[in-house]
Amino acid sequence: MTTSREIRLKSRPVGTPVADNFELATVELPAPGAGEVQVRNHWMTVDPYMRGRMNDVKSYSPPFALGEAMQGGAVGEVIASNDPSLAVGDLVQSMYGWREAFNAPAGAVQKLDTFGLPPQAFLGVAGMPGMTAWVGLLKIAALKDGDVVFVSGAAGAVGQIVVQIAKIKGNTVIGSCGGADKVAYLKSIGCDEVIDYKAEPDLTAALNRVAPKGIDVYFENVGGEHMDAAIAAARPFARFALCGMISQYNATGEMYGVKNLIQAVGKSLRLEGFIVSNSFQHLPEFLKDMSGWIQGGQIQWKETIDEGIENAPGAFLKLFKGENTGKMLVKLS
Amino acid sequence: MTTSREIRLKSRPVGTPVADNFELATVELPAPGAGEVQVRNHWMTVDPYMRGRMNDVKSYSPPFALGEAMQGGAVGEVIASNDPSLAVGDLVQSMYGWREAFNAPAGAVQKLDTFGLPPQAFLGVAGMPGMTAWVGLLKIAALKDGDVVFVSGAAGAVGQIVVQIAKIKGNTVIGSCGGADKVAYLKSIGCDEVIDYKAEPDLTAALNRVAPKGIDVYFENVGGEHMDAAIAAARPFARFALCGMISQYNATGEMYGVKNLIQAVGKSLRLEGFIVSNSFQHLPEFLKDMSGWIQGGQIQWKETIDEGIENAPGAFLKLFKGENTGKMLVKLS
Repeated sequence: MTTSREIRLKSRPVGTPVADNFELATVELPAPGAGEVQVRNHWMTVDPYMRGRMNDVKSYSPPFALGEAMQGGAVGEVIASNDPSLAVGDLVQSMYGWREAFNAPAGAVQKLDTFGLPPQAFLGVAGMPGMTAWVGLLKIAALKDGDVVFVSGAAGAVGQIVVQIAKIKGNTVIGSCGGADKVAYLKSIGCDEVIDYKAEPDLTAALNRVAPKGIDVYFENVGGEHMDAAIAAARPFARFALCGMISQYNATGEMYGVKNLIQAVGKSLRLEGFIVSNSFQHLPEFLKDMSGWIQGGQIQWKETIDEGIENAPGAFLKLFKGENTGKMLVKLS
Repeated sequence: MTTSREIRLKSRPVGTPVADNFELATVELPAPGAGEVQVRNHWMTVDPYMRGRMNDVKSYSPPFALGEAMQGGAVGEVIASNDPSLAVGDLVQSMYGWREAFNAPAGAVQKLDTFGLPPQAFLGVAGMPGMTAWVGLLKIAALKDGDVVFVSGAAGAVGQIVVQIAKIKGNTVIGSCGGADKVAYLKSIGCDEVIDYKAEPDLTAALNRVAPKGIDVYFENVGGEHMDAAIAAARPFARFALCGMISQYNATGEMYGVKNLIQAVGKSLRLEGFIVSNSFQHLPEFLKDMSGWIQGGQIQWKETIDEGIENAPGAFLKLFKGENTGKMLVKLS
């Protein structure tokens, strides 16, 4: 028997989640059955979208069940195998995060060739957040030469990649983030202008100051006042890739009301929401681009790492306090 | 000399325009100079977009100048010509509305072949409003088989055409309007479900009631609460053609805040603003479709007609009170 600890959703958060919404439980795993493997997770990811799954609301992912371990991306190592396709020692990727170890059908995990990258990169730059940045900027916003790009949450897991892809493509990039450390990081990765939204009394004024001619692309991670500022600064035919609105995920009662949407008519703006899992047909193209950029030293990334399954809820909560720079990860073993 | 009366913008409206924002003036027109024609207008149009031009704000059309006659679509007859391309008696279309008669270079007016239609149809169903409906529904929203279409302001100049094009294409159509007469009109032109927004305490609840499976296309003419309701009812991958937001044109201070925009992410919605003048490359295709539909008796339209240039400001104000059904026009001679 293998002992595994896991994080279960104990109660559905109202507003900002608190520690008591989660519980740590211990389970004993039998040997894997026929066709199964047993995996010890090394890394798990926490991502803002998981907040939505904590509500009992139908969305693109089903809600997490109360009293059960949550799901999410993870990278681990096969520690027992009862299937010929996987051997002890194989690295695998799965959606069995939020737990130290698990048994699963071999077909429910994916063997991982890291191509020399640290394995947790496949939870970030070379995984879902990296592909989200790539799809949103290049396919949804359809970036073109000369576009001025504005990225909110630019120092986050997705934002940091959006900034660098836009720079690789030769565009002017404006990022927003909260705090001097993140400003310094964004400047270090080539962001042309950085707005510290915590230091700006008027975000629209700040954006107009650093983008006096306006913006052509907005990559939306934050929502709220950021959306109004981006619409106000948008040039005609600007394209908005709506990736997330983290400022609104914990809203109770009414969400922030976006007041400038009327300008979308006169300026012929296009606002398009997207979920990366609807774009998996682009995976080979993304991997080709991203592996080339990483090998060429054109893409850097930061990680913020907490350790231990017991600290996973706290790591998740840091996302909403802006306490992570780059990808927020939990190291499990 | 020909005497012409014209409506000038006397002062810029703050909020809802009032009679005192306009003045009636009389001018004497000399004989047309070389290369010019003199035109007596029979019809002029009033359209919601003109409200934006009354503000001193840079937009897709320049602001109307204070103390000068406003501009807008008109249909008239050449009463004197000093250019070989046009003869007395020719019907012409122009942007010299808001006046009884005018002199202009022959190249600034367009000779009009009515193909047997009443000439004012070229200010409505066969003109800018008709083409706006066609472009928004077929090109911007990219209507496809099986889509459930929601149209706000459905009994207006544009909305009534959107409803009928969608029905010609075989789609299910839900229209919103204000008042029993408009409800009856929309039912008479085939609208499957009609929402009288004035009689509904909760527009989202009303839309969910008549579209229990949700909507795939939203044609936006109204804005405000209508936008929140449409987002709430949208199915994944719904497309919104943002044509106008008449409920917000006279807002003073803050606009209505759209609270549901976050749902655009999870549902992968596309919201796209448009101006018909950016789509004139589609004019031949529009005219081919529309002339076929009109000849085949597949498109009907209503007009609300006021008479006399002195009543043009009042006709314009009716648009914001919802006092027109179909195209609002002013008959000048």
